[in-house]
Amino acid sequence: MSQIGVIMGSDSDLNVMEDAIKILRQFELDYEVKISSAHRALERTVDWVKGFEAQGGKVIIAAAGLAAHLPGVVAGATILPVIGVPMRSGALEGVDALYAIVQMPPGIPVATVGIGAARNAALLAVQILAAHDPELSNKVKNYRAKMLKELEAKDEALQQRLKGNS
Amino acid sequence: MSQIGVIMGSDSDLNVMEDAIKILRQFELDYEVKISSAHRALERTVDWVKGFEAQGGKVIIAAAGLAAHLPGVVAGATILPVIGVPMRSGALEGVDALYAIVQMPPGIPVATVGIGAARNAALLAVQILAAHDPELSNKVKNYRAKMLKELEAKDEALQQRLKGNS
Amino acid sequence: MSQIGVIMGSDSDLNVMEDAIKILRQFELDYEVKISSAHRALERTVDWVKGFEAQGGKVIIAAAGLAAHLPGVVAGATILPVIGVPMRSGALEGVDALYAIVQMPPGIPVATVGIGAARNAALLAVQILAAHDPELSNKVKNYRAKMLKELEAKDEALQQRLKGNS
Amino acid sequence: MSQIGVIMGSDSDLNVMEDAIKILRQFELDYEVKISSAHRALERTVDWVKGFEAQGGKVIIAAAGLAAHLPGVVAGATILPVIGVPMRSGALEGVDALYAIVQMPPGIPVATVGIGAARNAALLAVQILAAHDPELSNKVKNYRAKMLKELEAKDEALQQRLKGNS
Amino acid sequence: MSQIGVIMGSDSDLNVMEDAIKILRQFELDYEVKISSAHRALERTVDWVKGFEAQGGKVIIAAAGLAAHLPGVVAGATILPVIGVPMRSGALEGVDALYAIVQMPPGIPVATVGIGAARNAALLAVQILAAHDPELSNKVKNYRAKMLKELEAKDEALQQRLKGNS
Amino acid sequence: MSQIGVIMGSDSDLNVMEDAIKILRQFELDYEVKISSAHRALERTVDWVKGFEAQGGKVIIAAAGLAAHLPGVVAGATILPVIGVPMRSGALEGVDALYAIVQMPPGIPVATVGIGAARNAALLAVQILAAHDPELSNKVKNYRAKMLKELEAKDEALQQRLKGNS
Amino acid sequence: MSQIGVIMGSDSDLNVMEDAIKILRQFELDYEVKISSAHRALERTVDWVKGFEAQGGKVIIAAAGLAAHLPGVVAGATILPVIGVPMRSGALEGVDALYAIVQMPPGIPVATVGIGAARNAALLAVQILAAHDPELSNKVKNYRAKMLKELEAKDEALQQRLKGNS
Amino acid sequence: MSQIGVIMGSDSDLNVMEDAIKILRQFELDYEVKISSAHRALERTVDWVKGFEAQGGKVIIAAAGLAAHLPGVVAGATILPVIGVPMRSGALEGVDALYAIVQMPPGIPVATVGIGAARNAALLAVQILAAHDPELSNKVKNYRAKMLKELEAKDEALQQRLKGNS
Repeated sequence: MSQIGVIMGSDSDLNVMEDAIKILRQFELDYEVKISSAHRALERTVDWVKGFEAQGGKVIIAAAGLAAHLPGVVAGATILPVIGVPMRSGALEGVDALYAIVQMPPGIPVATVGIGAARNAALLAVQILAAHDPELSNKVKNYRAKMLKELEAKDEALQQRLKGNS
Repeated sequence: MSQIGVIMGSDSDLNVMEDAIKILRQFELDYEVKISSAHRALERTVDWVKGFEAQGGKVIIAAAGLAAHLPGVVAGATILPVIGVPMRSGALEGVDALYAIVQMPPGIPVATVGIGAARNAALLAVQILAAHDPELSNKVKNYRAKMLKELEAKDEALQQRLKGNS
Repeated sequence: MSQIGVIMGSDSDLNVMEDAIKILRQFELDYEVKISSAHRALERTVDWVKGFEAQGGKVIIAAAGLAAHLPGVVAGATILPVIGVPMRSGALEGVDALYAIVQMPPGIPVATVGIGAARNAALLAVQILAAHDPELSNKVKNYRAKMLKELEAKDEALQQRLKGNS
Repeated sequence: MSQIGVIMGSDSDLNVMEDAIKILRQFELDYEVKISSAHRALERTVDWVKGFEAQGGKVIIAAAGLAAHLPGVVAGATILPVIGVPMRSGALEGVDALYAIVQMPPGIPVATVGIGAARNAALLAVQILAAHDPELSNKVKNYRAKMLKELEAKDEALQQRLKGNS
Repeated sequence: MSQIGVIMGSDSDLNVMEDAIKILRQFELDYEVKISSAHRALERTVDWVKGFEAQGGKVIIAAAGLAAHLPGVVAGATILPVIGVPMRSGALEGVDALYAIVQMPPGIPVATVGIGAARNAALLAVQILAAHDPELSNKVKNYRAKMLKELEAKDEALQQRLKGNS
Repeated sequence: MSQIGVIMGSDSDLNVMEDAIKILRQFELDYEVKISSAHRALERTVDWVKGFEAQGGKVIIAAAGLAAHLPGVVAGATILPVIGVPMRSGALEGVDALYAIVQMPPGIPVATVGIGAARNAALLAVQILAAHDPELSNKVKNYRAKMLKELEAKDEALQQRLKGNS
Repeated sequence: MSQIGVIMGSDSDLNVMEDAIKILRQFELDYEVKISSAHRALERTVDWVKGFEAQGGKVIIAAAGLAAHLPGVVAGATILPVIGVPMRSGALEGVDALYAIVQMPPGIPVATVGIGAARNAALLAVQILAAHDPELSNKVKNYRAKMLKELEAKDEALQQRLKGNS
Repeated sequence: MSQIGVIMGSDSDLNVMEDAIKILRQFELDYEVKISSAHRALERTVDWVKGFEAQGGKVIIAAAGLAAHLPGVVAGATILPVIGVPMRSGALEGVDALYAIVQMPPGIPVATVGIGAARNAALLAVQILAAHDPELSNKVKNYRAKMLKELEAKDEALQQRLKGNS
């Protein structure tokens, strides 16, 4: 049983969405990944969304570029929280996808993250699950502590380097 | 039997879309108007689109604001040409809707007109039909001739006014 | 015990954020509302966030305008999911707030909704809770069914009006 | 006799517009291609447009970059439906061309597709013709079915890859 | 014989373009004003431009809004310097018109002024003529001196007011 | 005696401005080129401008990038027509320079051309001079005729290629 | 002797810049206010700047709208820190002024505040002076404490209101 | 004792911020450099800021990209003047960072420089200190004089080259 579903509009998005999958693996969560389209495969997309919700899924991450309708269409087909990832592609570099995802009309929200922010999308999914899962909650705290350590280590390295220079 | 279908995401769009309906009436075309939503009423929208195509419809005009998915979803559900009208609403004044309609990914085009350009959407629908209808074609030519006359009349009025001033 | 916390940068945001509070009331959820600031009252903000998490809070909605740092600062101070609402204000009409909220750097996500989209922020919070609460889940389904009915009623009214005209 | 005319402002646009021509060939449609300019060769452009309409042409695709006037000028010289393709070029990456094409003033519409979306322009032209041509209509349906199959195949490949990884 | 021609796409532009006409009167220059359109009245526009050049015109000011093609089309039809004025109208508030005028492709320049900057368009026309007309040149110098005096007077008034306050 | 002055903010702009200089040579005009700065060398800039005007100069081309103040400052120091060229540089790719040049406040116009449009700046300068110089006027007409021929040759080559393919 | 100079491009800016002046009065600082222009009154502007620096001035606040050159020109004429305030005016609502002020080329910085942010400009000037003035430093701390108190009072009022509602 | 503190959100910013450090060295100022984060290390950031102020620091330069909260959070934690440097990164190329830094709400200003303008940030810090330090003031004047000389040398080289060509 997958708790998190990751759906994207094209296999060319996989390259970026790998960052999300890595995070889900790191937190040892069950997930599934799907390629589908709101325009070329609407029924198929809706079927997958409904099946994912029915089998006990909890959160969906949906990634798309250009006039990115996939996250919104998914959000309309489920009451699960849907996280939208605007992909950077085409002449507008993802601003089109950002607007097409974040500016959802009243009634059907999409939880939007930054352009190309696959890692943050996965972390948001993890945090949503962690709110009802103390063990996962601890893992998030450890992840944050690790990020802080890495930052401190980088700063420490810089201080050493600056001392060496002076 | 309606040749032209006009679908919009909200009855608040009717205000602007009246301009399209006026044009369709002026050209004595059969049309139908529908309020539906790509997010709140996806199945209903797709059903209407398929029904409209099945009963012999030729062109669909789809209007929506914000993260405007309706035109693209309609375009994915039919092979009829779909004309998208980005509505001016919200903080981005319709730029979001423009990008969400015009930047369709490869495979499913939407014929996009300007922000709030309901009249042009209807004229485009008329021209699409006119390409196979000599009588309608003549009406379009007359419409253009009338626009030219109006412009000439306005210029003439200006010239008179300027002479009066000098 | 509040499950949902709503924090905003200024009491002038209350006007818009009322829409969120109405939704939370409609779904009979426990919530608290806080005015604080990431710049003028950083410690106070962080204290409230930590207290809210400690007392069992599940989701935070954070609204701010201009260089909107509040949602990101809140997200850095908790592992609860944080929903960011960019407020429409100033010369940039909320585009500044949108970018300042959605473009969070890797590691600390904010679930961003549209500019001024208070109602969608609340619905997203509800859906996040509903994923672990079958009763709330049913309420969301009913809410969606009601939105669909309203849309159908508006369409029906339009059809009657159009028939009357013809 | 050509049904579809493709006109572009410069031979440097051919590179991108090849995608449109490939689609027209794939659907076995008669077409002609023209290089001309709204500024350097206005008369010549208008002559070609009028000749194309007179010889029985049905749809025109017009591509241009920067302050892209070609599609609008073509649209003013014919009552055939004109599809505009904003080319990606210069410092504004095609946003200038998009605005200069899609924001046509009332009376003379241009059916605008995405920035650089040559393939979608051709598919739109095909769909416009297909609305009055059952055989072509079937070809469009087959094209769509093929797109769906390709998407399913890509998803299938992904599922296999993911199974192999786990 | 008119030295300066002012052409605009619609009589609704007159409101703003009055500022240009006032300047031309103030500098006692011969001018003519024309309403025409690059889309609805292309031939008529080109005829006027060629006639204006033939009768000895020296500079053309062309104003248009939205996908503003008039200045560029005028520039393609004459070798006189053409000054383009992007009008503020529609959802994009004149940014579309600015891009559609200033981003002319190589070979046919348009001298673009700010959005709605009718007065500056006229002053630019005056300065172009003044470069070959010492008397007019003196008038421009006087105009500048007068602007400086007005500014000094405003500053003086402010200083008096501030002294009064302290 | 130079009729045309070309001033730019940095020698790194020379690369692009060469296109302007080539045009001036091609039309056999007397010109001078200057590197100066509105910020680092304000007095020097103003001195050069006043000297250029005093020695009989007729038009100034001013190029600058980023917060491009040079064209506006030059325009304030002379009554000669000033052509502004926004350079493409930095994160904003010249949009900053475009706005900083074209949006001049009332009273002091700058004739702005497209981002990086050095060639068009020179052609505009030529056209301004040609309005009072029949010989130069003929050269501009020949230049235009040559552009038209080149375009026709490219189209002819395309038609040959397409015939070869079919 | 004035420590802070406030210069603006037009007396229409006074309306907004009053907010800056109020802050300077509140902190009991010596200031002077000047209306001048980088284009219409360049010499006068430079003279004032040099005089202000010579008489012992410490910080200059410069406000301008549209292609806002005043702050940059002032910054080039002095080595005092210059704070730039982009004014909200015209079709671009101050984005032009923001870019024209903040994107200064290397060598001559302008300390830019938000669009129309007169109050913040003054507070920044105060903080610059306070870094060398312990008494003023205390006043800034008190000002901040007062802002915090006001925020707490607003929050308290909200809490009371919410209790009353429940 | 450091007068100037340089803080940045990531060691990947060092590459650009080196330009600031070089200027500080060139002016022989005491500075310290810190890597920290407003989101991953809020407390640590605030502690460093307060420590820096307590030990006698005078100015802080804060650099961050994307939804750049670091400068604003630093500004809220100190009354020292804070200079914000928006870093160029991600799909929006630093426009997000610019808006997130410059559009600070009333009460807490950040002195913003251009996107990636590390050198200007340092020069601004130097000028702020120079306002109370005649020796440093002289160094700034020399720096400016040197910039002017370099510009003159480049212009001289150009004049020689142009003479050689003619």
